[in-house]
Amino acid sequence: MPIDIVLDAMGSDKAPDPEIRGAILAARTLDVRVHLVGPEEILRPKLREALRGYRRQDRPPVFLVQASEWITMEDKAAQAVRSKRDSSMRVGLKMVREGRAAGFVTAGNTGAAMATAKMVLGSLAGVDRPALATVFPTSTGSPTLVLDVGANSDCDPENLVQFAYMGDRYARDVLRIANPRLGLLSIGEEDSKGNALTKDTLPLLRETKLNFIGNVEGRDLFNGRVDVVVCDGFVGNVALKTAEGLAKLVNTSLRESLKSTVTSQVGALLSQKAFAAFKKSLDYTEYGGAPLLGLRGAAIVGHGSSNDRAIMNGIRVAAEFAGANVGASIEAALANR
Amino acid sequence: MPIDIVLDAMGSDKAPDPEIRGAILAARTLDVRVHLVGPEEILRPKLREALRGYRRQDRPPVFLVQASEWITMEDKAAQAVRSKRDSSMRVGLKMVREGRAAGFVTAGNTGAAMATAKMVLGSLAGVDRPALATVFPTSTGSPTLVLDVGANSDCDPENLVQFAYMGDRYARDVLRIANPRLGLLSIGEEDSKGNALTKDTLPLLRETKLNFIGNVEGRDLFNGRVDVVVCDGFVGNVALKTAEGLAKLVNTSLRESLKSTVTSQVGALLSQKAFAAFKKSLDYTEYGGAPLLGLRGAAIVGHGSSNDRAIMNGIRVAAEFAGANVGASIEAALANR
Repeated sequence: MPIDIVLDAMGSDKAPDPEIRGAILAARTLDVRVHLVGPEEILRPKLREALRGYRRQDRPPVFLVQASEWITMEDKAAQAVRSKRDSSMRVGLKMVREGRAAGFVTAGNTGAAMATAKMVLGSLAGVDRPALATVFPTSTGSPTLVLDVGANSDCDPENLVQFAYMGDRYARDVLRIANPRLGLLSIGEEDSKGNALTKDTLPLLRETKLNFIGNVEGRDLFNGRVDVVVCDGFVGNVALKTAEGLAKLVNTSLRESLKSTVTSQVGALLSQKAFAAFKKSLDYTEYGGAPLLGLRGAAIVGHGSSNDRAIMNGIRVAAEFAGANVGASIEAALANR
Repeated sequence: MPIDIVLDAMGSDKAPDPEIRGAILAARTLDVRVHLVGPEEILRPKLREALRGYRRQDRPPVFLVQASEWITMEDKAAQAVRSKRDSSMRVGLKMVREGRAAGFVTAGNTGAAMATAKMVLGSLAGVDRPALATVFPTSTGSPTLVLDVGANSDCDPENLVQFAYMGDRYARDVLRIANPRLGLLSIGEEDSKGNALTKDTLPLLRETKLNFIGNVEGRDLFNGRVDVVVCDGFVGNVALKTAEGLAKLVNTSLRESLKSTVTSQVGALLSQKAFAAFKKSLDYTEYGGAPLLGLRGAAIVGHGSSNDRAIMNGIRVAAEFAGANVGASIEAALANR
């Protein structure tokens, strides 16, 4: 039985082309039906073109849903949600609320996606502030889930405890980690290290039934020591963007170093395959985007620079997210604290 | 006229060998006299060995100063400062206070170095909280100075404004940046983005005479958009350790990818020179360690894993720091706000 996933066709930097190709890729290779939301006059000719050559009976299940507007990366979240009442995000999320689809994917404006999802889907019982989570690649191959990475600044200890339950359930139900090790992002492992927020949160997390291992540091995001890391959204967003900035510098610097000598140019050719593997190991798109946790519905936000493959991975993760019934399991966990 | 620099001989993970070799390297190549502080019974035979082969008149100016104790990485800062009254850090910093040396370098416990320096040297007039700064490598080659990266959690807006003046003077006087662009670390460029601290700090920074460019993000730490970035010490420390963690993952991942195929092994050999250049471009040690700013004296903390070259660079930067009279220029700037 295929799962219905709504895809915002107008989200990514190069929308709608990566979305159309990613939707077809997903519909061909996964057990999903994809509903592309956006202006039909733009989407229909492109979709028809992309599906040319398929026989009618082999056509991958990709459908169009009309929305006359879309939210750009430059739009302010709160304002866009109010003023663009027929945006592709809003129309898509309504389909999830009405049960016409099980999950939602966008590669668009993260703040607007969170604001729209909060308004359209609403929060789960027991959740004060839904969170944006993301997975960091690690040296062990098993990703580390970090939340919040930007939806909520100035959190209080209760918010962080709720994030812990939300992350724990997502790690179990979607990432398939048996007994997720939970850490609190701080600036030293000792209990005495940290700021007022982490010092107040630490004893509360110790009291939970979660597999809490204590404070962890920025470097532990990449070494596989911990499966789920909770932090204030300001701190998590700084960590995420610092990592993105360094990854970009590494790419540029490596390319330039390799160009700089003739022997290393030959070396570069021979190392190409290795670099592809290396880049893939650090590639967020392989992990399928950032889940919005704590909402009444499964929603995934991909990177604005998403390509076809990243879009497909987003759809795959949204289907797993929706199929695992994470929302119900988060509500149950929060009710039985 | 050579500058006298005190070097904690017992700081680094492999102390005192990198310190002894780094001190000799610095004394041979820079216009400095290096005072190695630590237990003479350990240091004297090693120094004698390292200086064998030099004729008396060619001996680099490296001297021993007795200290019977030293602070380890495992020691708690506050406790070590109280209990180890004859530590190499304390004896070394006293030499700076007494004017017997112009600057201090350690590759030891950062927290203990800051605590000891605060106690022994004291803060500059107008400085409530001295800060730990560090330089991030960027794609333009000109480093970005970030403070605070760990000395102070739960800062208030006034602390951040003071950090801004301290960073501005260090960037001008030591990093030789003409009109440093100053940024406030936040989670979006717009004034409306951030947490309570950044929103309260933003208007205060706009009122200063500094070259303030507004909010910057984690990714701007590496792209050369900004020369000096101020932030709360908790946030800065998370950013620093996140960058260190990712840099380590990149190294491991690259090495493993290169090992994985025979052709890429050949490629790796040919690319070796390029990798050396690449790694150097990301190497903190080339920049000479993290300055403690806001104290009555020049103090530099290097990484615990410092090698000879990193120690030498730390001594070089301490000499530049001391020679530039940054303390006086910070006090003047704060007095004329």
